[in-house]
Amino acid sequence: MNTTHLHAFILAGGRGERFWPLSTYARPKQFTTLFGGTPLIAQAVARLQGLVPEANIAVITSADLVPATREALPNLPPENIVGEPIGRDTTAAVALACGLTRRRDPKGVAMILPADPLIGNVPAFRRVLADAADAVSREPAIATVGIAPTFPATGYGYIECGAPIDAPGTPLRRVRRFVEKPDLETAKRYLETGAFVWNAGIFLWRADVMEAAFRAHAPAWLPLIKRPDDAPALYPTLPKLSIDYAVMEKSDNLIVARGDFGWDDVGSLPALARQFPADAQGNVAIAPAYALDATGNIVAAEGTPRATALLGVSDLIVIHTAKATLVAAKSAAQNLKALVATLPPDLR
Amino acid sequence: MNTTHLHAFILAGGRGERFWPLSTYARPKQFTTLFGGTPLIAQAVARLQGLVPEANIAVITSADLVPATREALPNLPPENIVGEPIGRDTTAAVALACGLTRRRDPKGVAMILPADPLIGNVPAFRRVLADAADAVSREPAIATVGIAPTFPATGYGYIECGAPIDAPGTPLRRVRRFVEKPDLETAKRYLETGAFVWNAGIFLWRADVMEAAFRAHAPAWLPLIKRPDDAPALYPTLPKLSIDYAVMEKSDNLIVARGDFGWDDVGSLPALARQFPADAQGNVAIAPAYALDATGNIVAAEGTPRATALLGVSDLIVIHTAKATLVAAKSAAQNLKALVATLPPDLR
Repeated sequence: MNTTHLHAFILAGGRGERFWPLSTYARPKQFTTLFGGTPLIAQAVARLQGLVPEANIAVITSADLVPATREALPNLPPENIVGEPIGRDTTAAVALACGLTRRRDPKGVAMILPADPLIGNVPAFRRVLADAADAVSREPAIATVGIAPTFPATGYGYIECGAPIDAPGTPLRRVRRFVEKPDLETAKRYLETGAFVWNAGIFLWRADVMEAAFRAHAPAWLPLIKRPDDAPALYPTLPKLSIDYAVMEKSDNLIVARGDFGWDDVGSLPALARQFPADAQGNVAIAPAYALDATGNIVAAEGTPRATALLGVSDLIVIHTAKATLVAAKSAAQNLKALVATLPPDLR
Repeated sequence: MNTTHLHAFILAGGRGERFWPLSTYARPKQFTTLFGGTPLIAQAVARLQGLVPEANIAVITSADLVPATREALPNLPPENIVGEPIGRDTTAAVALACGLTRRRDPKGVAMILPADPLIGNVPAFRRVLADAADAVSREPAIATVGIAPTFPATGYGYIECGAPIDAPGTPLRRVRRFVEKPDLETAKRYLETGAFVWNAGIFLWRADVMEAAFRAHAPAWLPLIKRPDDAPALYPTLPKLSIDYAVMEKSDNLIVARGDFGWDDVGSLPALARQFPADAQGNVAIAPAYALDATGNIVAAEGTPRATALLGVSDLIVIHTAKATLVAAKSAAQNLKALVATLPPDLR
């Protein structure tokens, strides 16, 4: 297909409390350079190269993060960094993206991508996006990219795949249903059937098709689609709702492109261990570290060259930034958000 | 007595590996400002005020630490900071102190004091030293100050007290014997008898009396006593031996002044908890710290204003300096020296 009709909207709305102190309120996860030296948001843009023209790549983020985002993405037109006045979850962001696409290119195909995930195999990622874009440019469907699960994750929603779509060589299937985060037993069952994929929050659609979906299932957002410039006034009137609830779970024209490209959202600090090598004692050092009688620990640092010495400790996460050090038990990482809530504002 | 005949020698020869990273090879424990904001060595000098004239206070330290020690003690005459060419334990240091005292004031009384310990009750400390100095100026004895034990410590040598010395109002006793670091059962027995005190490495003597003791028990050190200026040449010829072994355990003219003045050598990092208040969860924060589901931890920092956040961890020691962070299990602190040995030289 003609890629000049492809438009990408990278959603960077989260505050990443589960990633503190690598992620802070003023400098959320998409700015971390821990993975490969460049901010995640810059990597999210870079991996679209050759697929989506830079002029067609936009970022939807919090209004207060627009300056930092423009700074991190000097190659994008500044007006492509769009600020949301307040967070209203993904439904508002998708409606805004729909409105912006519709105004610029009514027959254009838009893709919605989260800013944070790491992608191990970028060519494979691009191929899946191209296949999905191709499909939604041919038929009035909404496509999602589903991640082939590698373990019975309880932290993601799942998509059950249905009948294959007759496009030889593509991984496209009809969507049977969206399901919410399962418990471990259910997740194991999903994994065994082979029919379920992780919902990674990646969606592709033609503007007119998405507008019709909103008209049918979520009409409250139509004013935002029609007048995206009025976002500052409209956002506060909108409910906070995910696009899965508002539109996807109610739609019957969904297709899913099954992807297997080393996707990892590194959704919590213990997940860092998936992205970096461990030593013989299971310690993962993403910063200078020395250990004696220490096993299964993760040490990371951003913006500081200080060394960390571990003595007789196990299964800890030690993270340094210029302002703070976190020392957490891996097993307590799910409570990180509660700890961050107790911190003074300048540390959060 | 006339205090102009009192001479103090503060021994600052250790490298404090059990206190890393607050203590490093280039900046050992005596320079830490964690306790009260001034270096321990400066506190050791300051607490002699009114007892020993500043002109009579000397520090015996490693030659490489002489400049830093002079900088930390601007009020002392620079020549009173004496460098040892190599470490030869306390026997060489006492012999050197004896030689320096003898040359300057043959009838003078010298006191040997370690640089590191904290003293909670300084007036009481001065009174004990004055009593002991008084005793050794009257009779040809060597005095030691014994610390009234507060728990069955296995990390110190003990002194068994004998008959009281007939000086009303003073805590002086004859010494029955010196005993080495006991096991826990023995230490408990010592504590029960009430007759044992900790050997804190504090000794007082007249120069002529100490010289006689060396002549009787440790003649190899006599050349150093007679020619203290030849220390650079003599030190390498001397064995490495503690004054307890070389002289004290063999002498029969020993008296002990029992002291109860809040002595604490803070001999290891877990001992920090004795010097600072704990919160309701038993966490001791000697630096900005925030905790959730964390108990019994110690957080300290020197030279950095960074915050530490603890999540779901117990009985850890977390120490920050400008160069390094230590995260250690309290129970592993006795292995700190082995960890430090594995560090690159610039971190030790």
